[in-house]
Amino acid sequence: MEFNLTILGNNSAIPSHGRHPAAQVLQMGNEYFLIDCGEGTQMQMNHFDIKRSRINYIFISHLHGDHFFGLIGLLNSYSLLRREKTLHIFCHQPLKALIDIQLQTCGTVLTFEIEYHFLPDKQQIIFENKQTMVQCFPLQHRIACLGFLFKEKVEGRKILKDKIEKYKVPIAQMEALKNGEDFVDANGTVIDNALLTADLPPARSYAYVSDTLFLPEIAAHIPQVNLLYHEATFKNEDAQRAADTFHSTASQSATIAHLAKTKKLLVGHFSAKYHQEHLQELLQQAREIFTETIISEEGKKYEIE
Amino acid sequence: MEFNLTILGNNSAIPSHGRHPAAQVLQMGNEYFLIDCGEGTQMQMNHFDIKRSRINYIFISHLHGDHFFGLIGLLNSYSLLRREKTLHIFCHQPLKALIDIQLQTCGTVLTFEIEYHFLPDKQQIIFENKQTMVQCFPLQHRIACLGFLFKEKVEGRKILKDKIEKYKVPIAQMEALKNGEDFVDANGTVIDNALLTADLPPARSYAYVSDTLFLPEIAAHIPQVNLLYHEATFKNEDAQRAADTFHSTASQSATIAHLAKTKKLLVGHFSAKYHQEHLQELLQQAREIFTETIISEEGKKYEIE
Repeated sequence: MEFNLTILGNNSAIPSHGRHPAAQVLQMGNEYFLIDCGEGTQMQMNHFDIKRSRINYIFISHLHGDHFFGLIGLLNSYSLLRREKTLHIFCHQPLKALIDIQLQTCGTVLTFEIEYHFLPDKQQIIFENKQTMVQCFPLQHRIACLGFLFKEKVEGRKILKDKIEKYKVPIAQMEALKNGEDFVDANGTVIDNALLTADLPPARSYAYVSDTLFLPEIAAHIPQVNLLYHEATFKNEDAQRAADTFHSTASQSATIAHLAKTKKLLVGHFSAKYHQEHLQELLQQAREIFTETIISEEGKKYEIE
Repeated sequence: MEFNLTILGNNSAIPSHGRHPAAQVLQMGNEYFLIDCGEGTQMQMNHFDIKRSRINYIFISHLHGDHFFGLIGLLNSYSLLRREKTLHIFCHQPLKALIDIQLQTCGTVLTFEIEYHFLPDKQQIIFENKQTMVQCFPLQHRIACLGFLFKEKVEGRKILKDKIEKYKVPIAQMEALKNGEDFVDANGTVIDNALLTADLPPARSYAYVSDTLFLPEIAAHIPQVNLLYHEATFKNEDAQRAADTFHSTASQSATIAHLAKTKKLLVGHFSAKYHQEHLQELLQQAREIFTETIISEEGKKYEIE
């Protein structure tokens, strides 16, 4: 299954140094999930050749403007382009009223339905399809804020093509084999499932954590994720400012990655005060605790491996 | 006086082909007026090195999203940057409630005051200072929509430096000369004002017209403007679509420029369906009626001469 992440915005609230407010697109199989939608998200999609129309699910972590001010513009464009497909928005409840009053004031009747899924304040599965599961979990910010865990579903057994040919297993038996059943051939001989199948690779996962105070409990919600995007709004020397504003430092984000036994850490949500060279210092601070850290870059696609 | 216009967005509602929703900055002397504020306006300001902090007056033509969805983000950034100076917003009344509910939901208390100036539905002077006068005038769109005329104030006489030296006029007399008074020298000789001063150049003006159905009456509100920005959302062959959506075509915008005896016409607010080569065709259509037409370009500064 395709499983990759494209960063559209890696900055915190004030757009600066060419960086944009929070937004990213996660592809899982045929679905494209939009995670947060800061101002300019639709232009960033254009810029990086991501088709707006592919998105059917939007997840908004919290109701600070840099995480959703781009949503109303995106909805407006969808409607002008005569979208018909229902759009699912996972968000805190007050967002609906904000959207409604804006549409009403502009005299806009959308050409499509929005199905709102209001987020709980605790860990919970909020979306599932055949291939995918999305879970939210609480963060600690100035207002209600959630992280999201996107997990591949891996069920059953992987069929070994060469063994299928060798034992002449008919196509009709494939589902039974995937479910772990043995195969009985025309002579009544039982072929053990383990001879015909292998373990599937472990389920991959991606976690999005923005914005939050340093919160070690997060690690328990995202065990061994393949890729973690964690906010690192501040460098270590600005730890007090991080605490005051309910944000994390480079070292704190790396500590979460370490505690969760993450494979790779992508840091972002950078303060507007940091130029590109400051981000290199921030990276070094994170790497002292968690070596597999990288600085998120807008427009870059990260494979979840 | 400095008098120039920088285009930040020249597209209609759906951002496309690298073009942005409506926004422009007009410099008149020391004041920077922001006219409309589509999504991404603050990023465009960064991109084109226009300091956000210079802006104290914002004019919103109407409440369709592509003309104001960038405003809430700009206000948010001002507050995060701890702006203290009052910001004046000229807009239709419902915008205040939209801004208020968004700030409230985000838990944002602005660090500065907003002074709202609600727009009338007829021609009226809405702003004046020593050097400048701003007048609004009605357009015809799907919702209440106004154009804006920005006019230099030219009062009094221009002092001729060489004549001042020749007749030894003391500095204290300058204001009187500007007001057209004669000068009486130490010997009691009267020096005629006309010998010491000349006519000032005529007052320059700039008019912003977006969005509107073709409306010949507009010309009477903007006589002989030096620069007219008029929407030309559609090419002539899409005239029916223009009429249906209350927009103008290339020829229609050029006709307004011609009727108003405009010096120069800048067309913009282009439909998302047009690529750059289509805009060249649109330009040719306008020039058939009004030769002094140019295609507005984002990031370009136009002097009002």
